Amino acid sequence: MTATPDMTPSVAALIDLALEEDLGRGDVTSTAVLDPRATAEADLVARERLVVAGLAVAAAVFQRVDRSIAVELAAADGDELAPGARAATVRGRASSLLAAERTALNFVQRLSGIATLSRRYHEAVRGTGLRVTDTRKTTPGFRLLEKAAVRAGGAANHRFDLGSGVLIKDNHLAVAGSIGEAVLRARAGAPHGMKIEVEVDSLEQLDSALQAGADIVLLDNFTAANVEEAMRRVRTRTPRPLVEVSGGVTLARLPELARAGVDLVSVGALTHSARAMDLALDIRVRAP
Amino acid sequence: MTATPDMTPSVAALIDLALEEDLGRGDVTSTAVLDPRATAEADLVARERLVVAGLAVAAAVFQRVDRSIAVELAAADGDELAPGARAATVRGRASSLLAAERTALNFVQRLSGIATLSRRYHEAVRGTGLRVTDTRKTTPGFRLLEKAAVRAGGAANHRFDLGSGVLIKDNHLAVAGSIGEAVLRARAGAPHGMKIEVEVDSLEQLDSALQAGADIVLLDNFTAANVEEAMRRVRTRTPRPLVEVSGGVTLARLPELARAGVDLVSVGALTHSARAMDLALDIRVRAP
Amino acid sequence: MTATPDMTPSVAALIDLALEEDLGRGDVTSTAVLDPRATAEADLVARERLVVAGLAVAAAVFQRVDRSIAVELAAADGDELAPGARAATVRGRASSLLAAERTALNFVQRLSGIATLSRRYHEAVRGTGLRVTDTRKTTPGFRLLEKAAVRAGGAANHRFDLGSGVLIKDNHLAVAGSIGEAVLRARAGAPHGMKIEVEVDSLEQLDSALQAGADIVLLDNFTAANVEEAMRRVRTRTPRPLVEVSGGVTLARLPELARAGVDLVSVGALTHSARAMDLALDIRVRAP
Amino acid sequence: MTATPDMTPSVAALIDLALEEDLGRGDVTSTAVLDPRATAEADLVARERLVVAGLAVAAAVFQRVDRSIAVELAAADGDELAPGARAATVRGRASSLLAAERTALNFVQRLSGIATLSRRYHEAVRGTGLRVTDTRKTTPGFRLLEKAAVRAGGAANHRFDLGSGVLIKDNHLAVAGSIGEAVLRARAGAPHGMKIEVEVDSLEQLDSALQAGADIVLLDNFTAANVEEAMRRVRTRTPRPLVEVSGGVTLARLPELARAGVDLVSVGALTHSARAMDLALDIRVRAP
Amino acid sequence: MTATPDMTPSVAALIDLALEEDLGRGDVTSTAVLDPRATAEADLVARERLVVAGLAVAAAVFQRVDRSIAVELAAADGDELAPGARAATVRGRASSLLAAERTALNFVQRLSGIATLSRRYHEAVRGTGLRVTDTRKTTPGFRLLEKAAVRAGGAANHRFDLGSGVLIKDNHLAVAGSIGEAVLRARAGAPHGMKIEVEVDSLEQLDSALQAGADIVLLDNFTAANVEEAMRRVRTRTPRPLVEVSGGVTLARLPELARAGVDLVSVGALTHSARAMDLALDIRVRAP
Amino acid sequence: MTATPDMTPSVAALIDLALEEDLGRGDVTSTAVLDPRATAEADLVARERLVVAGLAVAAAVFQRVDRSIAVELAAADGDELAPGARAATVRGRASSLLAAERTALNFVQRLSGIATLSRRYHEAVRGTGLRVTDTRKTTPGFRLLEKAAVRAGGAANHRFDLGSGVLIKDNHLAVAGSIGEAVLRARAGAPHGMKIEVEVDSLEQLDSALQAGADIVLLDNFTAANVEEAMRRVRTRTPRPLVEVSGGVTLARLPELARAGVDLVSVGALTHSARAMDLALDIRVRAP
Repeated sequence: MTATPDMTPSVAALIDLALEEDLGRGDVTSTAVLDPRATAEADLVARERLVVAGLAVAAAVFQRVDRSIAVELAAADGDELAPGARAATVRGRASSLLAAERTALNFVQRLSGIATLSRRYHEAVRGTGLRVTDTRKTTPGFRLLEKAAVRAGGAANHRFDLGSGVLIKDNHLAVAGSIGEAVLRARAGAPHGMKIEVEVDSLEQLDSALQAGADIVLLDNFTAANVEEAMRRVRTRTPRPLVEVSGGVTLARLPELARAGVDLVSVGALTHSARAMDLALDIRVRAP
Repeated sequence: MTATPDMTPSVAALIDLALEEDLGRGDVTSTAVLDPRATAEADLVARERLVVAGLAVAAAVFQRVDRSIAVELAAADGDELAPGARAATVRGRASSLLAAERTALNFVQRLSGIATLSRRYHEAVRGTGLRVTDTRKTTPGFRLLEKAAVRAGGAANHRFDLGSGVLIKDNHLAVAGSIGEAVLRARAGAPHGMKIEVEVDSLEQLDSALQAGADIVLLDNFTAANVEEAMRRVRTRTPRPLVEVSGGVTLARLPELARAGVDLVSVGALTHSARAMDLALDIRVRAP
Repeated sequence: MTATPDMTPSVAALIDLALEEDLGRGDVTSTAVLDPRATAEADLVARERLVVAGLAVAAAVFQRVDRSIAVELAAADGDELAPGARAATVRGRASSLLAAERTALNFVQRLSGIATLSRRYHEAVRGTGLRVTDTRKTTPGFRLLEKAAVRAGGAANHRFDLGSGVLIKDNHLAVAGSIGEAVLRARAGAPHGMKIEVEVDSLEQLDSALQAGADIVLLDNFTAANVEEAMRRVRTRTPRPLVEVSGGVTLARLPELARAGVDLVSVGALTHSARAMDLALDIRVRAP
Repeated sequence: MTATPDMTPSVAALIDLALEEDLGRGDVTSTAVLDPRATAEADLVARERLVVAGLAVAAAVFQRVDRSIAVELAAADGDELAPGARAATVRGRASSLLAAERTALNFVQRLSGIATLSRRYHEAVRGTGLRVTDTRKTTPGFRLLEKAAVRAGGAANHRFDLGSGVLIKDNHLAVAGSIGEAVLRARAGAPHGMKIEVEVDSLEQLDSALQAGADIVLLDNFTAANVEEAMRRVRTRTPRPLVEVSGGVTLARLPELARAGVDLVSVGALTHSARAMDLALDIRVRAP
Repeated sequence: MTATPDMTPSVAALIDLALEEDLGRGDVTSTAVLDPRATAEADLVARERLVVAGLAVAAAVFQRVDRSIAVELAAADGDELAPGARAATVRGRASSLLAAERTALNFVQRLSGIATLSRRYHEAVRGTGLRVTDTRKTTPGFRLLEKAAVRAGGAANHRFDLGSGVLIKDNHLAVAGSIGEAVLRARAGAPHGMKIEVEVDSLEQLDSALQAGADIVLLDNFTAANVEEAMRRVRTRTPRPLVEVSGGVTLARLPELARAGVDLVSVGALTHSARAMDLALDIRVRAP
Repeated sequence: MTATPDMTPSVAALIDLALEEDLGRGDVTSTAVLDPRATAEADLVARERLVVAGLAVAAAVFQRVDRSIAVELAAADGDELAPGARAATVRGRASSLLAAERTALNFVQRLSGIATLSRRYHEAVRGTGLRVTDTRKTTPGFRLLEKAAVRAGGAANHRFDLGSGVLIKDNHLAVAGSIGEAVLRARAGAPHGMKIEVEVDSLEQLDSALQAGADIVLLDNFTAANVEEAMRRVRTRTPRPLVEVSGGVTLARLPELARAGVDLVSVGALTHSARAMDLALDIRVRAP
């Protein structure tokens, strides 16, 4: 349940955007009020029960502000923290710690929100054959970080982007014509390591997708009854395609979907509507 | 109630990060399935009642993907849209529209979430002397956009960053010593156009701040009774300092704070915990 | 056989690096020698038989140097051009055309080299069930462009990057232990839309991969005899996994591999060792 | 024969583009398959006889992926390596080594190809007065690196870019009029430290260039007989201008050009058509 | 009187632009002439009496060129240096020191020029109630650095940018109508921590601004007599607004303005017309 | 006397840094005070006699802020403007014009300062054989722009950077040994189109440089008498090397240097100590 998002150039660029927007004109309060030689240490602590994520980014924020800040991690992404539990300790110039504080917290609060929500979904399906995945409904610029937070919570990732998975949707069919034709073209044109997934919104479309040889079918906004009927039809195929369900799926519906034998459920809310978790930085002045 | 966030270099950089993460490896589905010459038009529509924000960014996303896409706005940031109402129409190459779709929606759904929540807070204080403001608890990299969304919703902005407002907090006091000393230094060192704001967490600290001549006092996590007592003490000063309240303030508490004569309430949830609004892109194929 | 690589932010960044390195200190010759008001037009022509690729990038180079340059395409990526054939015509300030010339040519000569070589491989397997693909052995920073050039030549793309396909190699096994264990973990951890591919360098490893349920097996540096034996073993499985062959495969070996029933052959040389094609810019002065 | 390309901001930007395109979405295989705590070491070894180049860039790639990777160089740019010879050893987290492997190899294979080819040309003129130089026909974004690789091979650099040398070509003459006029303007307008070079494609043009006082004449696509006649005419001038020859010059022609007394020959193929050399990363797992 | 401008992402980007423009094509002299293994040390020394500024940036320049260069500071920003005094010593590869020399000096000479000029203004008002501030007339891209240099000299900062202070100018009034209306809108729309400043160019406009309740009035190009009259009118208001004077204010006029009771004088020349101070790098070769 | 600095990627990046620092947090005054639909036009006018430069950059600034702003140039770089003369007119949204105003002025005031000072030097040598050049003592990030401003003023450019000219200085000699050795290495290692320039600070060093065959000698801080003696010695050589003089050369000394037959004088002050020229933007509101 570890998740160590690598510090890619894009994540570094995002951290730079974030620091520039908060610090780019200096810090008028600290500049005026603080002794520039003062040093301090501070604990990053949970203020409520949560699954933490984004610790590597928070550490990178502190060190981008001031390379001489020491960061000591006391938890790993995916750990569940009780209120008051310490996730990390940072030490260095007081003005640097205060300068980095808000940006570091903004990252970790948001990513922990996603990990915590993902954990709840993950626990609801634990022990069943159903896998909960995220979607591409992520915060612009945050996809790598948010997908790592989803994994930290225990849920799984759907395709990363438009280039790493084939998913034929209604909009493609509107342009491309029949499902059969679209699957054929996808099989011929897409890299051979990718399965062909087709989104369907009716049992008729499902039949077309199955006939076309889709590797995965995505049932969008199906009723419980239609999901069951869909599973019946899917089970007649060899090899049996994977079945994904999407469309406003709540925690409450997960047991029913698991019982029906659905393989995957994708949940946009994991990333687009998780609330921020409450974490804070408790600062202590140190003798210089 | 208009809000037109200018397309600053940083916002352009954020859009580039977002497009690169979704499109940087191409779109395997569209490349394989679509006729590259196909054209289409699509409506950006609300799927629930909401206050829209981020339309300029969404437009910029489409045109960054393909400069030949035409964008026609049917609403302005800050407008309230009923379910089904159209916010914009885009026209161009079908593969370009599909490539930009998710990123444009991710921006506008999130920013509309902030505008919609801000509107609810704004309406709760309409006609009173109380002003609702945002905080610096914004999504890293999104501050300019999210602060514009808050204004689109009708709420007000607090300081933009560490360089555009003096706010002396407990962490500064831990390093700098007394409130009196800190205010003195801030008055001497900060640009003359900035008021000096001091965060206090007790009535004793409030007295020190008032004595030190703070222009604004921020009552953090005060009970209703203590807010009333604080207002009594503040009213004895000439000129009377502004009073801001923060700390988990819910909609329900706003009337009471307004009645107490509080000037400002700052609400982190406006930006850190708004849920995404449901908007979609309805595509129509056009004769080429 | 069209290929229109979209102008992603990264491709724009690469064009900027290229122009900066050639033009960043100005053009001392043109500045001293040319009348700044002189205008000209120029044809981009093939000097040898080739399959053209990179025209969109070349056009972008001219317009990045000077937005007022008009570019008229006379061919599309993937077209075969005879010596002397025109691929495009550009018109504008003479100094701008000369400033962009070398950079535009450097892109299109290199990408046309890849398309031309890919076409030769593609023609060698036309009508058979064998598909020729590229690899990740691309010029750093050019992957999107080079993979589009491969498609323009008629060959196919392998996975784009480390995030868009699972390929378990000897280096993974050295760290992870057995093939069985590695496939199990990959199935559990990778996005559900990706097939699991395993590289094997012996028939024994092949058996392990088949038993582990690999979706694709990659026979690395197998002799012709061992390829045939491998195909025999693969054909006993249901569903039958795909078979890819790699390791210094030359044009001459393709018919034999096709006859053996191999599905895919991946060829690093398509991108790492194609020679540049000869194209030139023939300039004509125009009356201003 | 050392070559240490400095790590300029542009080279750093190119490395970032390269890592982003391969790693920007994570590494699905390593994430799923490897123990994140596993460490390893690996040798960068030659698989064929070659002149190595690009070691500093390869080292930078590993350290950009993971600052904790240790890089130990066993060779220097310009060294000739036998098959199996070790160029460097890297040590660190196994997942980091695998993540950086392909990008590091892509740089060093390509640059070693250029150094190896340059060495062959260099050896063909060793002991003569003829100097082999590169051109501006480099891979876009790679000029600094490729010019260093040319020097590592023992050949020389022509002007770096449009701003660091005056070269009047037929395209300039088409716009500017006579050679005499062009040389006059160049002498007046270009920085005083630059010699004036004029490209000529006939003996008549050569005479004009000599009369105009060109410091260097570039004989483009001259036959052997015309080169000899050109040298006769050039030798009559005091000070005698330098003579450069270009236009599809092969290794075989070098001795003849050296005997004719030509000073320089510029060869585009050094950078635009060198094939990649075969180097590999041999990984060994270490006890953690 | 210390000033340690933090190394924000934008300052890092500016350093990169500066190094790229001087070093991006390598250093042809050092590459040809120096032994690449030679090491050296060098002192950064003042060649005239000056107030130094920009030392942190100079240090960053050296370390960006070559991370192994050691920088030892012998002075702090704001220190006054006599001719010959040492500000810093750098040690490392000779070719790296020479590569960084000019760029490091260009920063520190310019910023020291600003600090030195600011010091002269600061000393002219020392002991009076008058504060000298800078303006937004800074070198594009250098605002953070130049504002820190102003503080190093002892003068104060005006608002940083268009987002960190309200200043209503004639151009706003031309568009917005009356001063009263403009102040009203600013009070309602701007963040509550900002005072409202109004620029006036006549006593009539001053009266309007006072009546509108401006917190600060900026007297632009007022004669001495009018400044005195303005002060009389301002003193009648409770609370008394701050008074700023601008418009070609020379050192000679400062005592008179101080005597008149003016609070602030803003001086564009501090940043737009300071001449560079003379500092140099004295290099010494060291045994390797 | 035209100078049209091309809009290279680096200049675009500098403009972005400049706009981000002034506008990146929005414009609190215009946002609060102006009607967002208001349009205006404004003249860029000279407030003193000056030689204008940087008009292309100023235009680019306006259009980067708002692509719909129309820019009409009324002068060209290098034109001399009388007080009140118009250099350009811009038209568009009032809030956009005000947002771009300061940054555009900051560029053009500074570059016009350089052009104006360069013109004065240029006129002092007009009709003589002496050429005035700039140095590398430019504002970091502004070299391309400032060198164009120098040319707009009529003076000439020295080498652009460390990669476009060989200049052997005392620091190189300290490391490399004798002048003779250094010149030999430079001739062998530097691109053949570059002359070899040697800086000397005594007549003895001059003799060594002449003997070594330097193409250009730079007399650093020579007295008038020594300059004359140096010229005598130089004139004995065939071909006679060029002679450059540097070291605090003032306008007053130019006639004497011209009479002595010196070829070049390089003046750091052209770029490092020119004062900003006074230009302003006069705005007029237009009916919408």
